Amino acid sequence: MVVDIKQKITLNNLQPIRQSFSVTFDYGVHFTNAVFDTKNPLLAKVIATDGETKPKKVLAVVDSGLLQSRRMLLKQIATYSDHYADTLKLAADPIIVLGGEEAKNDPNELLKIHQTINEVGLCRHSYLLGIGGGAVLDLVGYAAATAHRGIRLIRIPTTVLAQNDSGIGVKNGINAFGKKNFLGTFAPPYAVLNDFTFLTSLNDRDWRSGIAEAVKVALIKDADFFEYISTYAHALVCRDLNRMQNVIYRCAQLHMDHIANNGDSFEKGSSRPLDFGHWAAHKLEQLTNYRLRHGEAVAIGIALDSTYSYLIGLLSRLEWRRILNTLLSLGFVLYLPELSEQMTEPEHPRSLFRGLNEFREHLGGELTLTLLQRIGKGVEIHEVDMSLFRQAIWLLGEFYNSSLPATGWECMM
Amino acid sequence: MVVDIKQKITLNNLQPIRQSFSVTFDYGVHFTNAVFDTKNPLLAKVIATDGETKPKKVLAVVDSGLLQSRRMLLKQIATYSDHYADTLKLAADPIIVLGGEEAKNDPNELLKIHQTINEVGLCRHSYLLGIGGGAVLDLVGYAAATAHRGIRLIRIPTTVLAQNDSGIGVKNGINAFGKKNFLGTFAPPYAVLNDFTFLTSLNDRDWRSGIAEAVKVALIKDADFFEYISTYAHALVCRDLNRMQNVIYRCAQLHMDHIANNGDSFEKGSSRPLDFGHWAAHKLEQLTNYRLRHGEAVAIGIALDSTYSYLIGLLSRLEWRRILNTLLSLGFVLYLPELSEQMTEPEHPRSLFRGLNEFREHLGGELTLTLLQRIGKGVEIHEVDMSLFRQAIWLLGEFYNSSLPATGWECMM
Repeated sequence: MVVDIKQKITLNNLQPIRQSFSVTFDYGVHFTNAVFDTKNPLLAKVIATDGETKPKKVLAVVDSGLLQSRRMLLKQIATYSDHYADTLKLAADPIIVLGGEEAKNDPNELLKIHQTINEVGLCRHSYLLGIGGGAVLDLVGYAAATAHRGIRLIRIPTTVLAQNDSGIGVKNGINAFGKKNFLGTFAPPYAVLNDFTFLTSLNDRDWRSGIAEAVKVALIKDADFFEYISTYAHALVCRDLNRMQNVIYRCAQLHMDHIANNGDSFEKGSSRPLDFGHWAAHKLEQLTNYRLRHGEAVAIGIALDSTYSYLIGLLSRLEWRRILNTLLSLGFVLYLPELSEQMTEPEHPRSLFRGLNEFREHLGGELTLTLLQRIGKGVEIHEVDMSLFRQAIWLLGEFYNSSLPATGWECMM
Repeated sequence: MVVDIKQKITLNNLQPIRQSFSVTFDYGVHFTNAVFDTKNPLLAKVIATDGETKPKKVLAVVDSGLLQSRRMLLKQIATYSDHYADTLKLAADPIIVLGGEEAKNDPNELLKIHQTINEVGLCRHSYLLGIGGGAVLDLVGYAAATAHRGIRLIRIPTTVLAQNDSGIGVKNGINAFGKKNFLGTFAPPYAVLNDFTFLTSLNDRDWRSGIAEAVKVALIKDADFFEYISTYAHALVCRDLNRMQNVIYRCAQLHMDHIANNGDSFEKGSSRPLDFGHWAAHKLEQLTNYRLRHGEAVAIGIALDSTYSYLIGLLSRLEWRRILNTLLSLGFVLYLPELSEQMTEPEHPRSLFRGLNEFREHLGGELTLTLLQRIGKGVEIHEVDMSLFRQAIWLLGEFYNSSLPATGWECMM
């Protein structure tokens, strides 16, 4: 690549310079209990592996929703930091941010984190600790990725959804202009610590909601895993922690394997099989003003796209019904009136079908939806038949309305 | 990595899941003239190589400073787009942003770009076209990297500095909390088009200023290149476009080679040899309220760190003087009163030495400065002797004040 620049060079000689390099990303997802118990050295060990001068500056950002059930958490974090003072040092009191989607909707939450990073002088070798649900981790991840072009991020996901899906991957984001994740980057974390003890204080909705992403990944990638979820649906709903750990672990494995081995870790192409059911889910969240949890919306999205897969002759009737029955036995609602608003006006802001275009726009390129060929096997399509999709909504409504209502005492049995 | 999750798993069995993957980045830096002349197919060709459905949505963001000397530019862009309508389509009128550092200081400039991306529905496979100096390209790059987690960016740098340094690399950023590049990411462009015709309308300051980065990279990596710049300093100052093209080409080559082959393309470590002279440069820009151009500040930073390299016995007196004389013959000012403010209070906000700490904080980890062992060979150090650095400032002042003033008629000879 060396050019003798002393010779006279005319413009024609100035060949394009081709740049090509690879960047390797490495991180571990750890499974533990009571991560801030001083007897648990995991967090300190993870920080100690960086091999640099100690103690490292750490700034914790905590989900306010979590503090309602974990009142001692801030004190535990401080005690933990004191105990491992040789390794880490809290650079400031933990920042408390709004829980749930509000974390991503309110730009002040991002500003608050950036301001503190600046005030306490975190550098690229310092640590931001995100502790909370998926939305809070998305916010903290975006703050970490953009300050000084990237501060190290350790995620401590505290919900089922964050532990098996949103908290273990390579994305972050906040909402802007009314669009989910309009701003965000691809930025792998430094490490993820899944602490199962946080799950015990979840309310039933949040406990259940995260199972939807496990159903999703099972449907497109692993029939045995779907069988497991289906078999133990009752135990899962009734808060069997051991079964839930298995579900989280396998779901995390499948997600991470996909990110590493699909050949497009940072989603430069148009394909995104892990977004099965998500075009409708994202739009439904917005149409319900985020009254729906993300997982609850995903369950409906899965049900809808499975129904469409059945109607276009891709999925057998038997498997279609198994999927919907499994979602029902997990306690998910599968139909909402919002599905049918402005059905004949696909570009109306209140039409679910507007979500198809928004989904395409966010991913970029050609419209690419994942449908089901069978349980455990997704397939991509690039065109949809709107009339069959309307029929799928109607059929889903019929199915759901004729199903038995949840009784509320299943766990007594 | 498959686990039989049907067997009862106790927590001890849940081994950490290790994630590891690489992402490859590829782009070309092209050299051309009159990029928006309809007879020049380069831009259309670069977009056409994506092999996707045409025409692609393109949004141009233009440096307002550029428009002062290129009044027809907006019309040329529109005509070009019409001519290549099969390949590209302007999604909106070009956005005009402030030129120079103000582009990065005013958060409204970023918001304006994001708003338009949202309004016209750009997706990850659309193109943002940044046309302007280094500061504008940094802003446009940050906007592109964060919208939808990354819209394709084509940079069209229009200054010497942007064509040989800031516009060809993998970084972007804006200023916040009074700190340069506090917000930013690592995000390689889709392509870079260096159009030499833009250089002819630069004023003398901007023409000269970009040579400083070429001197820098020559000093740490390529003695022959330093020799070339030194030999042709007079021609370069007198606006010999052919020599300048050679300087830009070689400088770009050395920069890109460093990014690809230094083993740390996204700067996860503490080492950053390309920032030779930059700790003082960044601080001087701030101390002078950005009255100094970046390249002018870099010239002083190079002069200072070369002087310090000489004083600690690393660099010979002969080479030290050659470096300073070359910078002088390029027309750079090498001393400003701001260098000596609050010298004995290194943490004072007005002290140049405060820049050492800000530099360390931005890079992260241990303080790492590049000094010179000889011309063409940089070396890293982690500690500085403040008393010798104060002496270096004094010596630089003496040297500069005893040098002959520029006469202003050199190019007549």
